[in-house]
Amino acid sequence: MESVVIVKIGGNIVDDQEKLDQFLEDFAAIPSKKILVHGGGKIASKIGETLGIQPKMVDGRRVTDEETLRLVTMVYGGLINKNIVAQLQSLNVNAIGLTGADGNVIRSHKRVVKEVDFGYVGDVDEVNGGLVAKMLEDMTPVFAPLTHDKQGIMLNTNADTIASVLAVSLSEYAKVRLMYCFELPGVMEDINKPDSLITSINTPKYKQLKADGIIADGMIPKMDNCFDALHNGVSEVLICNAMQVSEALNRSDVGTSLIK
Amino acid sequence: MESVVIVKIGGNIVDDQEKLDQFLEDFAAIPSKKILVHGGGKIASKIGETLGIQPKMVDGRRVTDEETLRLVTMVYGGLINKNIVAQLQSLNVNAIGLTGADGNVIRSHKRVVKEVDFGYVGDVDEVNGGLVAKMLEDMTPVFAPLTHDKQGIMLNTNADTIASVLAVSLSEYAKVRLMYCFELPGVMEDINKPDSLITSINTPKYKQLKADGIIADGMIPKMDNCFDALHNGVSEVLICNAMQVSEALNRSDVGTSLIK
Repeated sequence: MESVVIVKIGGNIVDDQEKLDQFLEDFAAIPSKKILVHGGGKIASKIGETLGIQPKMVDGRRVTDEETLRLVTMVYGGLINKNIVAQLQSLNVNAIGLTGADGNVIRSHKRVVKEVDFGYVGDVDEVNGGLVAKMLEDMTPVFAPLTHDKQGIMLNTNADTIASVLAVSLSEYAKVRLMYCFELPGVMEDINKPDSLITSINTPKYKQLKADGIIADGMIPKMDNCFDALHNGVSEVLICNAMQVSEALNRSDVGTSLIK
Repeated sequence: MESVVIVKIGGNIVDDQEKLDQFLEDFAAIPSKKILVHGGGKIASKIGETLGIQPKMVDGRRVTDEETLRLVTMVYGGLINKNIVAQLQSLNVNAIGLTGADGNVIRSHKRVVKEVDFGYVGDVDEVNGGLVAKMLEDMTPVFAPLTHDKQGIMLNTNADTIASVLAVSLSEYAKVRLMYCFELPGVMEDINKPDSLITSINTPKYKQLKADGIIADGMIPKMDNCFDALHNGVSEVLICNAMQVSEALNRSDVGTSLIK
């Protein structure tokens, strides 16, 4: 196996069937081995509301209680994952839907309680990249944002993190390109100026952008995941718009490239 | 691969956590390669009720409309399947949860409308036994009762049928034992007499039992699935109580053996 592209899409694509259709067509057209990691999406909250499961917040942060764990296991691992798999199959991609429990591919532990008890949220301990590499011989893995603790419990796990740990683990077996797709063209100097795309960021520039407040809030853990991956064997990390996957793979002026 | 045991459990086990725990321990202890196929269970109807999805019946038969398909995709393919996988992982079985869409392992078509339109129900066209055999090298597949049409649509599919078509397809690669587990000790002469177990049934005896009305109703398609499997390469078919899997594998006086 020469190279693998790992693409992560967020809930905003998962929730928008039209965008998802276009994205999956572009993803299907990627000629190399590939893996898709999908996030959750508002559909889980909507179904949860109908089921009378209230989103639990502690100090403004979402908590996965037992009911919510059951909800995300069925919505992320069943509804969203299997529908994406079926759609990719219709595009002649031999997709296989996975959580970290399947094949014991990603083992994690329930997050240790510090200020906040996040409940059934997993922090990753171990990735079985060898088994994923073997699956890649015949199939295209599609990961839901769920792992397990090997003690019988599923755990809600951040999709960005899943993409990053998979990328690192697979970098033992192949050249790995990791792509984080979201609704913007990439990292922007000014979110309101479409022409302010930052085409590449290295470690010193990242520090500067954080100091200037250009990279802030939710972008910081995302970027940290990216740099973690780069420092642990991943060849290339790109942040781009989910509708530009094909262009981003072939052109250097699309999306934001992260370099060590 | 010398031999594979394929075990099918129904909704009554899936719905009963205590029974499921015991069954999974017994299943985990099976020393050969193995596959689990699980049915749906009342949990789907319960969640459906809470979501306001009414069971749709036509001429007394259940119909899978679009809402119900979404429901069973998430409950069978997500909630039930992933929790069984996580539990098996805790028992050191390297389980992988699958639907027929995953790896394009079971392709089916939407059942043709005759008297009743069953909706999104799949009748199986093709099984990729070679890929399942390859997965068995490292893993223990756990199948939810869902397939796909390769056109992007998931389809609700009878778990007995899934077990049977998998058994037939795998019989090209290994000696296959197929076990249908349910709440009775096996096929009974008289359901009210615990000592009336029929220990073996061949084709002439099956005809006789049907003529005598001893095998009737829902047992007929189940038995037909069994004989189909036997006539298409499967070495052995057994019908037994889900709590007796271990004994049934080792003793000839447990359960009902079907022979050609």
